[in-house]
Amino acid sequence: MVMEKSAWEKIIRYLRIRDKERTDILDDLLPQDLAEQIYRLSKEETIEVFSLLNNEEAALILGEMELEESAKAVALLSPKIAADMLSEMPYDDMTDLLGELDDDIAEGIISYMQKDDQEEVKGLLEYPKDSAGGIMTTEFISFKETITVKEAITKLREVAPSAETVYYLYTVDENDKLAGVVSLRELIVSQDEEVLSEIMRTTVLSVQANTDQEEVAHLVQKYNFLAVPVVDEGNKLLGIITVDDVMDVIEEETTEDILHLVGASEVEGSSLIDATVVSIAKTRLPWLIICLLGGLFSGSIISFFEETIDAVVALAFFMPVIMDMGGNVGAQSSTVFVRGVATGEIPESVMFKYFFKEIKVGILMGIICGITVSIAATLWQGSPLLGFVVGISMVCTVILATTIGTIIPIFFTKRGIDPAVTAGPFVTTIKDVTGLMIYFYIATIFMDKLM
Amino acid sequence: MVMEKSAWEKIIRYLRIRDKERTDILDDLLPQDLAEQIYRLSKEETIEVFSLLNNEEAALILGEMELEESAKAVALLSPKIAADMLSEMPYDDMTDLLGELDDDIAEGIISYMQKDDQEEVKGLLEYPKDSAGGIMTTEFISFKETITVKEAITKLREVAPSAETVYYLYTVDENDKLAGVVSLRELIVSQDEEVLSEIMRTTVLSVQANTDQEEVAHLVQKYNFLAVPVVDEGNKLLGIITVDDVMDVIEEETTEDILHLVGASEVEGSSLIDATVVSIAKTRLPWLIICLLGGLFSGSIISFFEETIDAVVALAFFMPVIMDMGGNVGAQSSTVFVRGVATGEIPESVMFKYFFKEIKVGILMGIICGITVSIAATLWQGSPLLGFVVGISMVCTVILATTIGTIIPIFFTKRGIDPAVTAGPFVTTIKDVTGLMIYFYIATIFMDKLM
Repeated sequence: MVMEKSAWEKIIRYLRIRDKERTDILDDLLPQDLAEQIYRLSKEETIEVFSLLNNEEAALILGEMELEESAKAVALLSPKIAADMLSEMPYDDMTDLLGELDDDIAEGIISYMQKDDQEEVKGLLEYPKDSAGGIMTTEFISFKETITVKEAITKLREVAPSAETVYYLYTVDENDKLAGVVSLRELIVSQDEEVLSEIMRTTVLSVQANTDQEEVAHLVQKYNFLAVPVVDEGNKLLGIITVDDVMDVIEEETTEDILHLVGASEVEGSSLIDATVVSIAKTRLPWLIICLLGGLFSGSIISFFEETIDAVVALAFFMPVIMDMGGNVGAQSSTVFVRGVATGEIPESVMFKYFFKEIKVGILMGIICGITVSIAATLWQGSPLLGFVVGISMVCTVILATTIGTIIPIFFTKRGIDPAVTAGPFVTTIKDVTGLMIYFYIATIFMDKLM
Repeated sequence: MVMEKSAWEKIIRYLRIRDKERTDILDDLLPQDLAEQIYRLSKEETIEVFSLLNNEEAALILGEMELEESAKAVALLSPKIAADMLSEMPYDDMTDLLGELDDDIAEGIISYMQKDDQEEVKGLLEYPKDSAGGIMTTEFISFKETITVKEAITKLREVAPSAETVYYLYTVDENDKLAGVVSLRELIVSQDEEVLSEIMRTTVLSVQANTDQEEVAHLVQKYNFLAVPVVDEGNKLLGIITVDDVMDVIEEETTEDILHLVGASEVEGSSLIDATVVSIAKTRLPWLIICLLGGLFSGSIISFFEETIDAVVALAFFMPVIMDMGGNVGAQSSTVFVRGVATGEIPESVMFKYFFKEIKVGILMGIICGITVSIAATLWQGSPLLGFVVGISMVCTVILATTIGTIIPIFFTKRGIDPAVTAGPFVTTIKDVTGLMIYFYIATIFMDKLM
């Protein structure tokens, strides 16, 4: 950790002053700002800061730290103190944090918790981390659909402090099944004597506990929800997922997609800064080895044209431009396509229409790049024929690269495989092989005249 | 547009039935779902659908459609009808939509609006589209800090229907300057007779109207706000930005970043499906031409080693694998770094620490890839020396590619330039040039023995 003296002094000053002057430091300092500083402190400093915080403050700050960092901090504390602090956190954050700790440390902390907290947490820990159940909280507000607005507001005033969001109030029928939703806004503007079933919306979108978190994120984003309810198979309300957790999911999933595009991924359970060199290399090497084999395969294509190169060495000078352009055009096509599918801009119904347009784009770009490179080659090597060979190869390579860069992700998408993960190495190898084959094949045709 | 008969029939059936059976189709059909279908309809069908919707429904649906699609639909309607529908939209969505239309169509619609709507919209249209002012709405709730909770709740019940979000209530002092914020939740759980200044939070983060929308998005994401206030230089409240608009910004900016990584970008003012071939090619060609020049430059390096290739043609067979690996490793390093900076995982203070770790990763990966390729080369060409030359070149290329892939984005970041936009072509060209130079330089040293 890089230590910033001023940050540390600022925190300690705040914490020491506040006992005299005010009881809640968080009036002046937002927990997120404090959270951002703490992870840079040494172990001893971290322990000192937490000893100066009350449980509520500590819970707020732990909830705002990066998960790996907060787990590290909690592991430094005694299980009893950690249990008291964690008890002030919403269940979803508490569960995430416990799930991040080593099993024995987590169990030690859980053993100091109150009975009902223990049960909630153990229940939540059973859901996979990246499922709706894994990110939901069980602190939601639900009312029987038969009570009045006035009764609801009165009850709300009693329970609100412990619920994570009060902006949606879910209504349940006599069997505790999800019946509808009333926003706090609708509640506030309704008449006291109205019954919830009269003002609630009955079209409630909900997700199952095992729904993938990415799907939940898309739902919240599409419908602009502040929260979405999680139900079991019998439509019984289990918990809710709030928009702040969804934003974290979107960031996480987008990062995953972007890294997959280049065959990298995050090191499970540690941040970029803390991951070991070996663990980082492990995430990237599989793709690199595939690329390495692809590169050797492309090279073997060249070996078939050994005589051609032997006769006209200048042909080798244009290999980089042919390969680079194929690579870049292919990357553009596949990235634009993969992103378009991810954002919903390219729905499945128009995929092939999009494909044909992309080929037209490839033809236009191919002709422009082909003319440019053939002029450059003619001027450089003083051979219009060589310029012609390079130019024609460029046109073919660019068109092929747009085709391959689009058709391979379409192929994976149609088969239900995430194209971001898989398309890259295939596109690279196929465009190299085809590009070089076209280039040397055309060159071989004109070889007599090129010599 | 691809036409899906069933979707069209479903919509029309809904719209025809609802006059008899119910007044609000949106009870059964969420506006987002309807919005998703409409953009696939023909012009005539679109006009028919909107003629069957009342103004409120039309406003909801227009607000949920992709901006380009809703602008297209509105352009089909008479300015008077469009003005009535738009008047039901929140000001921020209304402004976005008008900003998307051709100027004369927008002015025609505005001329049919009510005076106060006209003034609001004209004011909002003056802010740049991607600034806080451009995405904010002026329909927020603010109270004098001196009123009581009870008074606030009463007032809230009157004004809530026209405000976009009621979840944060901003308090202002006697000079209309932003003084604090009370969440609806805090208001609900407070005593009737308490004064807002007693329960409000005085640490309110706000943004200026000219703040970049990406910065606003990061703020909302970091602090988990449901809305953020926009103020002028004198701290006077101008509007608010809500979390749903922020999620759209995050998606938009992430897409932009991803596309920039491959030198593509969205076509201004039209969707992927509708953009013309020429306009798509225009967004991609500048980068391709730079890459083309870079590729020719790399090729010119090879020409210096013409004699070496002439003597040992087999050297050309390993050019693709050296170039591809340099490209892939460089892309991994720069993508992981750029994404880490974007998500805040790599703060500026640890950038160089990160850089040195990345080089260590490069050394490890280089050694592994180098050994692999040297074995493959030895087996394929039957020359351990050639295997040695290719292997050593691979080690150097991979290490150099991680270095270049990180140092170039660091360079741009330190200078305040978005590395996602600029790093790509430089990384490609520099790694090609250095990789090929190393390869042929080492080969030339051992040339006597390779022949």
